[in-house]
Amino acid sequence: MEIESATQRKAVGPFASAWSCLKALPDRSKPKPLYDGFGVSGIWAVLTVVVVFEFTVGQTLSRGLNRSFATFLACALGVGAKHLASLSGEKGEPIVLGILVFLLAAASTFTRFFPKIKARYDYGILIFILTFSMVSVSGFRVEDLLEMSYQRLSTILIGGSICIIVSIFVCPVWAGQDLNKLVASNMEKLATYLEGFGGEYFHNYSESEEGGRVGGVSKSDKSFLQGYKSVLNSKNTEESLANFARWEPAHGRFRLRHPWKQYLNIGALARQCAYKIEALNAYIGSDIQVPPEFQGKIQEVCVKMSCESGNALKALASAIKTMSDPFSANAYVESSKNAANDLKIALESASLNNIVDIQAILPSATVASILIEIVSCVEKISEAVHELSNLAHFKKKEATVTPDDHTKPPHNLLHRGSVNPVLDGESNRVIITINQTTDSPENENPKAPNPVGQRPLV
Amino acid sequence: MEIESATQRKAVGPFASAWSCLKALPDRSKPKPLYDGFGVSGIWAVLTVVVVFEFTVGQTLSRGLNRSFATFLACALGVGAKHLASLSGEKGEPIVLGILVFLLAAASTFTRFFPKIKARYDYGILIFILTFSMVSVSGFRVEDLLEMSYQRLSTILIGGSICIIVSIFVCPVWAGQDLNKLVASNMEKLATYLEGFGGEYFHNYSESEEGGRVGGVSKSDKSFLQGYKSVLNSKNTEESLANFARWEPAHGRFRLRHPWKQYLNIGALARQCAYKIEALNAYIGSDIQVPPEFQGKIQEVCVKMSCESGNALKALASAIKTMSDPFSANAYVESSKNAANDLKIALESASLNNIVDIQAILPSATVASILIEIVSCVEKISEAVHELSNLAHFKKKEATVTPDDHTKPPHNLLHRGSVNPVLDGESNRVIITINQTTDSPENENPKAPNPVGQRPLV
Repeated sequence: MEIESATQRKAVGPFASAWSCLKALPDRSKPKPLYDGFGVSGIWAVLTVVVVFEFTVGQTLSRGLNRSFATFLACALGVGAKHLASLSGEKGEPIVLGILVFLLAAASTFTRFFPKIKARYDYGILIFILTFSMVSVSGFRVEDLLEMSYQRLSTILIGGSICIIVSIFVCPVWAGQDLNKLVASNMEKLATYLEGFGGEYFHNYSESEEGGRVGGVSKSDKSFLQGYKSVLNSKNTEESLANFARWEPAHGRFRLRHPWKQYLNIGALARQCAYKIEALNAYIGSDIQVPPEFQGKIQEVCVKMSCESGNALKALASAIKTMSDPFSANAYVESSKNAANDLKIALESASLNNIVDIQAILPSATVASILIEIVSCVEKISEAVHELSNLAHFKKKEATVTPDDHTKPPHNLLHRGSVNPVLDGESNRVIITINQTTDSPENENPKAPNPVGQRPLV
Repeated sequence: MEIESATQRKAVGPFASAWSCLKALPDRSKPKPLYDGFGVSGIWAVLTVVVVFEFTVGQTLSRGLNRSFATFLACALGVGAKHLASLSGEKGEPIVLGILVFLLAAASTFTRFFPKIKARYDYGILIFILTFSMVSVSGFRVEDLLEMSYQRLSTILIGGSICIIVSIFVCPVWAGQDLNKLVASNMEKLATYLEGFGGEYFHNYSESEEGGRVGGVSKSDKSFLQGYKSVLNSKNTEESLANFARWEPAHGRFRLRHPWKQYLNIGALARQCAYKIEALNAYIGSDIQVPPEFQGKIQEVCVKMSCESGNALKALASAIKTMSDPFSANAYVESSKNAANDLKIALESASLNNIVDIQAILPSATVASILIEIVSCVEKISEAVHELSNLAHFKKKEATVTPDDHTKPPHNLLHRGSVNPVLDGESNRVIITINQTTDSPENENPKAPNPVGQRPLV
């Protein structure tokens, strides 16, 4: 595949002459109706396409452009090296050429050690070394080399552009779109886990209270809790997709300088969250009997934290998927933060009553503690998605009342304030403070003016 | 690089004729002293080496063998397809050939979708498609094709064997050895973290008790705690190394069928442990004031759990590195398990005293709980390393007293038993039970016979 140019019919270079010699050989090949139309160079075009054509547009572009530029540079430098070497006489020429090939090959091999260069230009550097060695050591005269280089370059440009045009216009698979989908679906997997976790953990607990779980049933239920595991090792896929996405032109709702790096940040935060979920997952099968008073105190609020975090992640994922403003997630994030605060309060108040055994409450306490961590992690993800929304100019929705608002108004309203049990000995008084916070995304009271205007603070 | 064979001097095939035509062209190239010795094919050998030669022996072997076998198969099938097509007359030939090329190219492209095949034979399949298309569509007669195929194959075998011989005998870099080192060094990174964690976490706590931590100092101290992060994303490196290691012949202490898969299992468990450490790491900077009574109760035993787990991992890592029997880790694993039991007991006893606030003890309780998980994870790693040791026949050490035994005998002796605080109201009695367990690897009493013989239970 390195001598595609050699097969061009109108070629004047040495390879072309060789091919015309070949064609002129008497009786070596019978006339073939298939090839007379296309010419022998058809096969080389096919081979170039096999090497350059890849799954995503970005990868095809990356390989095609790498190959073209590397060939251009290698041909130019090769001819230059040849000319330079020919100045030093017949005896000196091989020595000068040898030194030049060694220096350039060593330098370009060395650049492959840099991870950033390797990620983007590895194929180009390989082609550069190959072509440069071939051009400069081939032993032809400079004039022939110029012709040969011209032929090489033009064939590669033809092959490369066919690949690029087909990959862009015939059923394109955009690496950028894939990255967008991958990040969103990873967040959805975490959300599915978090939404299921509360029910699963406390359901098991209730079952074990009712006389022992049925192992088989609870295990078959758990299958939907395994989805998050693929998020743990998603780093390499995300990085390579982001790498290819950078090569892609503007397409659909993705502009040329789309903030692909921000997707990597969001992906890293999602992995952080997945690590915490992995730690959480260890407690799902635990059989330790938790005192019912303690369990009762934290159960509701833990389930709520888990569910609201899951809802927030779902809303953020759908915002990324539809590339719309992620403000609908704010309510869930706020709600989960409030639940975390409620949990802290519940734990403070729990201590006074008749808990006898820290060892027994340890698993539930740990679950609660990890859930608090997850809530703060989801908050960070939310911030990162908002930043992405700003950087990529996601389309803003009108801050009208969304369908969600109708279904959950009292629920969100409740969490504008905090519930403070007052712990003064025997009396179980509770102080409920309602803060009319302005940064809450839905303001249900139609008479109270929203000071921030139509769009909530993001 | 696809037509190396064409340049062989004694070649009879069409490419060779082309080259001899080229060489015969009057005055197109001056005589060059450099090339007269090696012949023009020298450059093609260089190019083959550039494509096949890779960093590790396994990768070079994989590429070289893939290339050779794929070329052989493609040439054989290509000639066969050509012969089959020629039977169907001049008009039918291109149609039959087209169908055959389409079928074989589609089938081999489809096999690339299987992850296992892609990992091992991707390059071979690419070369197969290229060579098969070239041979069958080239338009030459069957007799010429046989010659051409023979030339192609022999050149590739020469280039491939040069690469393989050089990579094996000149400063070889074995993928298997690298995998062995990588798994061991990953475990060492986790060990470094665990050994440092106890000091770091409770040191911070003591500092904050003494009137606030100095942010700058504690941050600069934390750098050695970041090493474990590289373990989190080690999966792909490990898998590709294991994949290349399978191609390698027996070398050093690695036999031909070394259990590479078990390294992947150990690596997966080490990552599990790293995820838990990641969860643990979130608590290192926390500023919540833990009640000193509670802290005092768990501090010592937590530091011990963490240190002993770290020691166990270090011992296991050094066993993998030196490929020796990992029995020296058993003492540490036992000791860390005992510490975990002690912690459970300490927590059971802690509840009776004057703890007022579960919220305040939550971070420390979570750290303790995660440390218990880490201890059980380290135990699993230890089991996996023992299995590796059995599968790979690591060299057995004589169960004499190792240097470690001299430095830490009382420490290990102490954990043959358990310390049971008796919780009957006011009296703080403690029952110390010493179980003369036989599965403890070091038996310090020279008079008591070890019933298991020289080697401890593994």
